[in-house]
Amino acid sequence: MSTILPFPGHLATQFEPYLPFTTTDGFPSLTLTFATSLDSALSLGPGIQTQLSGPLTKAMTHYIRTFHSAILVGASTAISDDPGLNSRIEGAKRQPIPIVLDPNARWEITESSRVIQTAKQGKGRAPFILVSSNRWDDDIVVERKKMLQKYGGGYIGIAVDDSGRFKWETILSKLKEELGIESIMVEGGGNVINSILEDEENRRFVHNVIVTIAPTWLGKGGVVVSPERKSNVKGEYTPPRLKEVKWIPMDEDVVLCGKLYT
Amino acid sequence: MSTILPFPGHLATQFEPYLPFTTTDGFPSLTLTFATSLDSALSLGPGIQTQLSGPLTKAMTHYIRTFHSAILVGASTAISDDPGLNSRIEGAKRQPIPIVLDPNARWEITESSRVIQTAKQGKGRAPFILVSSNRWDDDIVVERKKMLQKYGGGYIGIAVDDSGRFKWETILSKLKEELGIESIMVEGGGNVINSILEDEENRRFVHNVIVTIAPTWLGKGGVVVSPERKSNVKGEYTPPRLKEVKWIPMDEDVVLCGKLYT
Repeated sequence: MSTILPFPGHLATQFEPYLPFTTTDGFPSLTLTFATSLDSALSLGPGIQTQLSGPLTKAMTHYIRTFHSAILVGASTAISDDPGLNSRIEGAKRQPIPIVLDPNARWEITESSRVIQTAKQGKGRAPFILVSSNRWDDDIVVERKKMLQKYGGGYIGIAVDDSGRFKWETILSKLKEELGIESIMVEGGGNVINSILEDEENRRFVHNVIVTIAPTWLGKGGVVVSPERKSNVKGEYTPPRLKEVKWIPMDEDVVLCGKLYT
Repeated sequence: MSTILPFPGHLATQFEPYLPFTTTDGFPSLTLTFATSLDSALSLGPGIQTQLSGPLTKAMTHYIRTFHSAILVGASTAISDDPGLNSRIEGAKRQPIPIVLDPNARWEITESSRVIQTAKQGKGRAPFILVSSNRWDDDIVVERKKMLQKYGGGYIGIAVDDSGRFKWETILSKLKEELGIESIMVEGGGNVINSILEDEENRRFVHNVIVTIAPTWLGKGGVVVSPERKSNVKGEYTPPRLKEVKWIPMDEDVVLCGKLYT
């Protein structure tokens, strides 16, 4: 798991147009990055880690991570994958800050979680966990916060809407304000990705999309990237479509790069 | 709709390894060919024709058609798309026989259906429609059969299983026996494609797979290619995965070519 990954320079240059840039709208720039099957599944089911893509696309992901100030995942991903959330690319110059969306403080992060182990070894950073401001004073939050703070991480309390979810606009402004974050690589899971794609108000924050597709069908019942069809304020539905598209074959997979913002 | 489509030679040569070949198992060789969104949708919903891919991939489909003795679609596709089921590629040397799977004789084919118009103009062939042998004597079948026979097409009655569906083995042996068909391009819809992918017994007939992917998410509720997870005789489930994979970027889309049979 702690292997250093090489990524060939001739491939790296292909991604230059899809690296984050400084935004002028006051919000951090989002990059959506994930790997799916042909039937758009991230995994065989909730909580099941599924190896989809080959070693080169894994190295590519770690390469892209170094260009972002943060990596963001949902609580379900943190719970099921126990991820390192660092960059293991050869010669990584900076490490992104791991951000976990966990409104209900479900992730039982401890000293032995991989992200903390990685931080202790100086190979990555401790995470900041976004929790509902209603949970801010919960004993478990207070206790975990103490542990996280030892390694430079912490909890950030933010407001939730009536359905108990964060608003993306709030997440992004809070991360910029509190941590100075300029660019975020959003890596999953399905609910997080779909919540961005399904709403035109959220799509505007996405600048780059990098999707790896593996030549297999996982079949019905997987965790799928497929947004709800939400109408915009005019009552219209427009499926999200990428612009400035580039398809890069890599191992048996293809990597799709594109721009989403309008 | 009757435009002649050009397909550049340098692209055509890329497909050579994925053209049908003569089989030794007595069954025609199947090629699965379809276009989906990133979330594996063929269309926005049942009966909704959805433009997904660009002009080059359309020409590619018409080019590939000329190498097959038949094109096969389900009744729902025939009903909703009123397709020509011919090849409109520049210099097409032969036309595939259109085959429609219609166990319940739902497709109200008439003289004005596009496939018949196309056959009348000498630009394609009249279809053979596979109907349940239980429906063979229905008045509507008898009547439509007369019309089809004028143009060289017809109905073929075959047995259905308890759930009213054809078995692929029966379809294929019947098509070979009655019409001498050696290779079939299966183009949709979702139920037809899924019924092949979901069953190892059916997958063995598939030699080539050519999938076009467009850089858009149609969103939940579409007609999706994603097989049921059926266990094999040993009680195991193996997701179908392509071999000898090639990804060919074309317009804004990518075309995935691969082999499926084991």
